Amino acid sequence: MKKIEVIKNVLDANQSIADQNQRLLSEHSVFAINIMSSPGAGKTSLILQTMAKLGGKLNIAVIEGDVASTIDAEKVKDKATAVIQITTRYMSENCTLIANMISPTLKSLPLEDIDLLLIENVGNLICPSEFALGEHKRVVITSLPEGDDKPIKYPMIFADADAVVINKVDLQNYVDFDIPAFRNNLVNLNPKVKIFEVSCKTGAGIDDWCSWLLDETKCKHTLSNKE
Amino acid sequence: MKKIEVIKNVLDANQSIADQNQRLLSEHSVFAINIMSSPGAGKTSLILQTMAKLGGKLNIAVIEGDVASTIDAEKVKDKATAVIQITTRYMSENCTLIANMISPTLKSLPLEDIDLLLIENVGNLICPSEFALGEHKRVVITSLPEGDDKPIKYPMIFADADAVVINKVDLQNYVDFDIPAFRNNLVNLNPKVKIFEVSCKTGAGIDDWCSWLLDETKCKHTLSNKE
Repeated sequence: MKKIEVIKNVLDANQSIADQNQRLLSEHSVFAINIMSSPGAGKTSLILQTMAKLGGKLNIAVIEGDVASTIDAEKVKDKATAVIQITTRYMSENCTLIANMISPTLKSLPLEDIDLLLIENVGNLICPSEFALGEHKRVVITSLPEGDDKPIKYPMIFADADAVVINKVDLQNYVDFDIPAFRNNLVNLNPKVKIFEVSCKTGAGIDDWCSWLLDETKCKHTLSNKE
Repeated sequence: MKKIEVIKNVLDANQSIADQNQRLLSEHSVFAINIMSSPGAGKTSLILQTMAKLGGKLNIAVIEGDVASTIDAEKVKDKATAVIQITTRYMSENCTLIANMISPTLKSLPLEDIDLLLIENVGNLICPSEFALGEHKRVVITSLPEGDDKPIKYPMIFADADAVVINKVDLQNYVDFDIPAFRNNLVNLNPKVKIFEVSCKTGAGIDDWCSWLLDETKCKHTLSNKE
């Protein structure tokens, strides 16, 4: 019983800090996305494709969350307005970003100059689902080689997603992944979710994804009168 | 400081229970493997291939760890001496198996009849590395579509592995994965690790993997005089 109480307190404390982060982002008209997936599903690749398409229209900042290394931050640094790397290896939570890791980064980012903040979470389909960071939308990437049963096996993260990006559709002829079955499993769990089919390798489907993201970002800006 | 103390106590308590589990397994000459990987890297496929090759030589039991669903247990049940499903969704730890989830299963498994126990952990490259279960060897599966940088980005799990299985080599022509670079990154971190290149889809490399596993199992049996 005591253990469960501790966990509940940790989650309540995290939510309170996430709410503060979200208020700060909204006050500065920064639209923030929490991008989650298994290791290697394509979070960094989607961020690179997004910056290539939308970099001329929006100022984009990136927070890279990793257990170790700065590999991903190196990849995105040239195209972003700002990049911050958070490495979790020696933190009390190492399997996910949590809200109080994001708070100090918001103090060092030039929020007035940023339209869109892409937060790449640690590669993990479980722990990140429990910890809000202050984002406005939650995006989950899945990829064809992982198999079409992931919404059934990792339901929490898929149930709470605002959008799911199915990546690596270029591998469709080489792996067993039934896209209609995946969509069906996902929509049963989360009827309102937006679904995109993309290949970050070939660029297929990236226009639709970016169009949705641009509309959502502009909508946020209009509501907060930044534009 | 208080949080870190709690975590340390949890890990110490887990190790003590894992040690008890390992003693019980060894007393019954059961050789136990903890199989860890990202979601969809091929844990269940490797177990199915292993049972197909070694089922005539060894009595094999399987413990399936999943956040939700019994999909994997259904797949392996016909070929195993015994199968137990552990679903972690509503447990205090849901991102990994821990030693005290294994202890009750050891009471219900027919240990006298089992040579090899394959424990399929929850799909996750982070949390499982911290929690011993009582296994004799730790095996990590990686797969080509995940990318060759995983030992750098998730060092803990690769540093502690006794063997690493590189799966989905049938996709080598369709994804960017530099096998020598991966091997180099891995051996820098873990010089003694055994490495296998396999395709659970085509069966390539499965003989080498099974040969190693059979030798290790027999070695354990000889030491404990079961044979």
